[in-house]
Amino acid sequence: MDFSSFITSLVTSFVIFVILMLLFTWLSRKPSNSVIYYSNRILKGLEPWEGSRTRNPFAWIKEALSSSEADIISLSGVDTAVYFVFLSTALGILVFSGVLLLPLLLPVAATDNNVIAHSHATSNNTFNDLDKLSMGNVKISIKGAWKLELHFCRVRDSISPAKSPRLWAFLVGTYWVSFVTMYLLWKAYHHVSDLRAAALNAAELKPEQYAIIVRDIPAVPQGKTRKEQIDSYFRTIHPETFYRSMVVTDNKQVNKIYEELEGYKKKLAHAEAVFEASKTASKPEGTRPTNKTGFLGLVGEKVDTITYCNEKIDELVPKLESEQKITIREKQQGSALVFFNSRVAAASAAQTLHARMLDTWTLTEAAEPRQIIWENLPIKFYARHMRQDIVYAIVVLTIFFYMIPIGFISGLTTLANLMRILPFLKPVLKIVVVRTVLEAYLPQIALIIFLALLPMFLMLLTKFEGISTESHAVRGTSGKYFYFTVLNVFIGVTVGGTLFTSFKTVQKEPKSVVSMLGKGLPANATFFITFVALKFFVGYGLELSRLIPLVIFHLKNKYLCKTEAEIKEAWAPGDLGYATRVPNDMLIITIVLCYSIIAPIIIPFGVAYFGLGWLILRNQALKVYVPSYESYGRMWPHMHTRIVAALVIYQITMLGYFGAKKFVYAAFLVPLPILAIIFAYICSKKFYRSFSHDALEVLVQDEAKETPDLASIFRAFIPPCLKSEKFDAADQFEDAVSHVSKSESSV
Amino acid sequence: MDFSSFITSLVTSFVIFVILMLLFTWLSRKPSNSVIYYSNRILKGLEPWEGSRTRNPFAWIKEALSSSEADIISLSGVDTAVYFVFLSTALGILVFSGVLLLPLLLPVAATDNNVIAHSHATSNNTFNDLDKLSMGNVKISIKGAWKLELHFCRVRDSISPAKSPRLWAFLVGTYWVSFVTMYLLWKAYHHVSDLRAAALNAAELKPEQYAIIVRDIPAVPQGKTRKEQIDSYFRTIHPETFYRSMVVTDNKQVNKIYEELEGYKKKLAHAEAVFEASKTASKPEGTRPTNKTGFLGLVGEKVDTITYCNEKIDELVPKLESEQKITIREKQQGSALVFFNSRVAAASAAQTLHARMLDTWTLTEAAEPRQIIWENLPIKFYARHMRQDIVYAIVVLTIFFYMIPIGFISGLTTLANLMRILPFLKPVLKIVVVRTVLEAYLPQIALIIFLALLPMFLMLLTKFEGISTESHAVRGTSGKYFYFTVLNVFIGVTVGGTLFTSFKTVQKEPKSVVSMLGKGLPANATFFITFVALKFFVGYGLELSRLIPLVIFHLKNKYLCKTEAEIKEAWAPGDLGYATRVPNDMLIITIVLCYSIIAPIIIPFGVAYFGLGWLILRNQALKVYVPSYESYGRMWPHMHTRIVAALVIYQITMLGYFGAKKFVYAAFLVPLPILAIIFAYICSKKFYRSFSHDALEVLVQDEAKETPDLASIFRAFIPPCLKSEKFDAADQFEDAVSHVSKSESSV
Repeated sequence: MDFSSFITSLVTSFVIFVILMLLFTWLSRKPSNSVIYYSNRILKGLEPWEGSRTRNPFAWIKEALSSSEADIISLSGVDTAVYFVFLSTALGILVFSGVLLLPLLLPVAATDNNVIAHSHATSNNTFNDLDKLSMGNVKISIKGAWKLELHFCRVRDSISPAKSPRLWAFLVGTYWVSFVTMYLLWKAYHHVSDLRAAALNAAELKPEQYAIIVRDIPAVPQGKTRKEQIDSYFRTIHPETFYRSMVVTDNKQVNKIYEELEGYKKKLAHAEAVFEASKTASKPEGTRPTNKTGFLGLVGEKVDTITYCNEKIDELVPKLESEQKITIREKQQGSALVFFNSRVAAASAAQTLHARMLDTWTLTEAAEPRQIIWENLPIKFYARHMRQDIVYAIVVLTIFFYMIPIGFISGLTTLANLMRILPFLKPVLKIVVVRTVLEAYLPQIALIIFLALLPMFLMLLTKFEGISTESHAVRGTSGKYFYFTVLNVFIGVTVGGTLFTSFKTVQKEPKSVVSMLGKGLPANATFFITFVALKFFVGYGLELSRLIPLVIFHLKNKYLCKTEAEIKEAWAPGDLGYATRVPNDMLIITIVLCYSIIAPIIIPFGVAYFGLGWLILRNQALKVYVPSYESYGRMWPHMHTRIVAALVIYQITMLGYFGAKKFVYAAFLVPLPILAIIFAYICSKKFYRSFSHDALEVLVQDEAKETPDLASIFRAFIPPCLKSEKFDAADQFEDAVSHVSKSESSV
Repeated sequence: MDFSSFITSLVTSFVIFVILMLLFTWLSRKPSNSVIYYSNRILKGLEPWEGSRTRNPFAWIKEALSSSEADIISLSGVDTAVYFVFLSTALGILVFSGVLLLPLLLPVAATDNNVIAHSHATSNNTFNDLDKLSMGNVKISIKGAWKLELHFCRVRDSISPAKSPRLWAFLVGTYWVSFVTMYLLWKAYHHVSDLRAAALNAAELKPEQYAIIVRDIPAVPQGKTRKEQIDSYFRTIHPETFYRSMVVTDNKQVNKIYEELEGYKKKLAHAEAVFEASKTASKPEGTRPTNKTGFLGLVGEKVDTITYCNEKIDELVPKLESEQKITIREKQQGSALVFFNSRVAAASAAQTLHARMLDTWTLTEAAEPRQIIWENLPIKFYARHMRQDIVYAIVVLTIFFYMIPIGFISGLTTLANLMRILPFLKPVLKIVVVRTVLEAYLPQIALIIFLALLPMFLMLLTKFEGISTESHAVRGTSGKYFYFTVLNVFIGVTVGGTLFTSFKTVQKEPKSVVSMLGKGLPANATFFITFVALKFFVGYGLELSRLIPLVIFHLKNKYLCKTEAEIKEAWAPGDLGYATRVPNDMLIITIVLCYSIIAPIIIPFGVAYFGLGWLILRNQALKVYVPSYESYGRMWPHMHTRIVAALVIYQITMLGYFGAKKFVYAAFLVPLPILAIIFAYICSKKFYRSFSHDALEVLVQDEAKETPDLASIFRAFIPPCLKSEKFDAADQFEDAVSHVSKSESSV
């Protein structure tokens, strides 16, 4: 990539961003689009926007900036607030780093005149050498890169002399970044811990705080039902605080019927709406919609849809009821939810060892009903562990063997290759503008599309592990994705082909990876700067403008949706999607930290990424997205550890980099990764367990104020497919499942 | 060591053993010695022996063999029973291994005629090569080792051909030993878990089951006492089950006064006894004993001892009382014991996260009052972690740098060296018998004395870590000692000098340690066989005969002891001393396992070690030793893990050994260590937590039968130096400490 394509890339990104911003300003003012741009507020029952519609087009910026953490918590939950703590911590790290590094390092490098000539002489060699270390198409041509070189190439090369006193400035910079990171992380951990405690302590009723998940229940003893077994076990141990239990059932069959029924109900509503709409003035009796009963409605007998659906519904309702009864009575699994009459009792029970054999009666704190993965609960102890091992093995294989397609794609997407493989594109590619844009973007776009493929696969794998909650699955996916992005994108691109061609060297001397990283980094600075810029300009531009959901919504609204429910479904905004968002942010932190010393010019780009991200996502969190679960900040330790991991990667890279420069005082950097690991250890010792469990002192306050409505707590956990439509639904369920007399369970 | 000194060594060991056995038979029948040979029974208030005194001299063997596990538990506790499970598991592993290996491997090796000549030719070379791998003085001369060679040297050398099908027998043997070990360990873990559960479940009152240890209590808030802070914290969280708390105090001062007072009391009793004894018929008024008040009673003013002691006691009693009050009121520390009104409540509280910040309010289950290390309780969270790191660093240094003195000593103790350094011994050393005996024993004795130096040092280090109970400290010491013995004795002796001379090779290629081990082992077979034989013949002979305690007791009894209390102190038997006993047994298992294939003849020696050990220690446990604490088998996971570690060392050694033989199918051994590690992992997942914590289902049974006497539980934890002699001692303490009105704490 020569200098002009670097600038082109930046400018194009910026132009796209400006266009997207304008689009957003224009589109979001149209009332018909408000469900797309203000979905969260609408679902919360608020007005889409306050004040008049013809307000200042940049009002959203003011609103985002002036919103408090409490606003975020009330509109989007603790998890979102924690995500903003993460964003602002990352922003803080980069701002503080930049404040020292930019004024310190740029002049130091720029004024080192006596090496400029030298730098010119060597850098060509260096780049030729480094060529094979970078992706085939990512090259920095020195010819046009005068200005750029002033900023980062020179910074790199000016520090060539083995004992240059100026290198000390870079060493101090490394220390500064490390300490800033640790200090801000420490403060953030305290803050998040407070947020979590406040949320857990809040007086509002959270059903999950009264329940625990019980797994690995041993075989039912002779002459007892599963229910009796569980009840007697917990009543013996917790005579005062046990309320009742709910045995997990195999709902596959009943769920199928339930969904079929719901499907016909929707279809009926749709058909009725169509029928209503067909009653025009000219044809007041309307046209009754018809459909075919065969495959995809394409073949088979043609029937009147309304009659057909009504028949089907009448047929399925009793079928559902009988299946519900069968499920509750006969499809009980070796897993249950157990309810207690106080938060402290439930938390105590969940954290305490109950059974002598740890592969029986495994207890964990319950999560919200909506995020429990019911079908995973009955998976047995050893099966879970084996599944986990299998998944880890698959993930490791995936991480390492994705290298091969990445290399293949990046080889394929050079222009020369494209022209050779797809010769009909030749005339188009010869146009200078197209050529420059493509040259600037192709590798990055290939990479981004590539990375978009993976998360679903990782989420599937993670759920296969037997994890019991959605939020845990998201954390698991995020972790796997993080390792993937860091290893493949960052290290993969940097060390590039050499890792495989010289695989034997690496095997023999693992230390050489560090020095490869040290040598390979400088060559890829421009690539990563464009990568970061693309991410924030185009990525956040698309995020804010929500073009794709908007188009999809309008298409659906026009051609498919007939009922209110269908329209609501069409604009359902979804959540922030931490599983991919967090690892992507982590990748940016890793990249920016690693380049902060080598090419400090990347820092403003990092600041822009997190600043813009904070602003735009603040708007999206307040107005668009609806969280799909609440884990009270359990994502934080995960983020924290990975920021520290990024820091350690950065420190080791610097060690390799200074080592490559033959700077004898590079050894002064050795304490840094050790310090960072100690820091991570202390943090996990001090904070972690209160994230994986609920601390009693937090739960206890304000307790005893009032006795909660235990029956409603119990009802909250009944899966929808087992809820009967009759009024006495829950009671029926209870009677069928519980066999506990009311007198016993009253508190 | 030539063949004759090997036989001499065995015969001498056996002779010493027979002599010690005869001595035991003769000495233990004398009534005056019964306090030495039957101390546990006497302290338990039983008759020293059942039946007449002139019984069968081998009756103890019958008694040991017929004693049940229940007898052991009632006379010596669960920990002792668990130790016997360990011994019998080790015995079982070796017996089962021997049953297959001896008939399988010895004939296979012995009949491999076509390699005998070859073996002769090469083994001389081999030994010359291996010379430098073994301790300088441990040499096997092939000349006289014909018979021996039949058993193990040949076994070793006969398998030289790279693809000998006979090697398969050895491979099968390795698998057999591994599976036998894992099967027996699995059964043993189940059994020990049952033992522990039964003991914890027992109805008898164990004060420690109602208490928890609280450490890292934060600073006292303004306007509250420490006591109020703790009480209000736990009463808020556990309003129903909290009984009361006991703040840990700094007892250094009061303890000093208390011990001084106790010293004078003893001295007074002694003086009175001496005075009584001096009233002979010839001198009915007797001689009042006198002493000097200065240093060690050697200098200073001469006073009448009885009067002097009485004065001192009168002086110290009020001093103690006032110091007790000051201690209780003013020397409170940031640590406490908290008592609950049920076992389940205490166990629940101990296992549950209470505070949001994990470096405050650290809770653990309490141990017996007698084994709590009070002065360690107030050590703060981070101080504990730092101390632990420091201790680990010191231990690692100790383990690696003890190699140097070991090498030095073993170099010093060759006869040639001895004669050179101490020339006056020359005439003695020239006597053939002395020479042979010394040659056979010197290195082993040097090693054994050497190993005896370490445990006290390791125990000190372990206690410095800030561990809160004696039993935990013993486990910690045992673990450190295990690593020491395995690394220094086993690997050190085997790989010997080479490890240091070729240290750089090792650093570069860690794999070479495995192959060194494989090559170095065969040369040291005789050394280790004599080592095992010495351990069991002489070690257990001394153990049974208790010669040293007997001599010390009789000396003290004759010259020093005048009062009953003094005599009782003189024969106090102590406990089994797991801190050194367990690692020594572990070393034997490691050695025997590692040689089981190379020189299967070692297996009978191993069987003899554990068989004889079981028998003799059974006798000692039933009749002699008094356990100093009870941890309900918490030692077991520790032993289990280390047996698995020994197994893995064995498997890796075999891998190295087969590798050194260039046996191409050695790769079939690779799954074994992996399997063993998975086995260890499964065991720890399934069982471990119920050893580190009490499972509620175990505690709950038989609960609610009766309310325990909580006041007496509380009193059991008052340290002796704070107990006043007055009748209302405990109440006084309670009033001073508690400020809790009786009505509040009644359950």
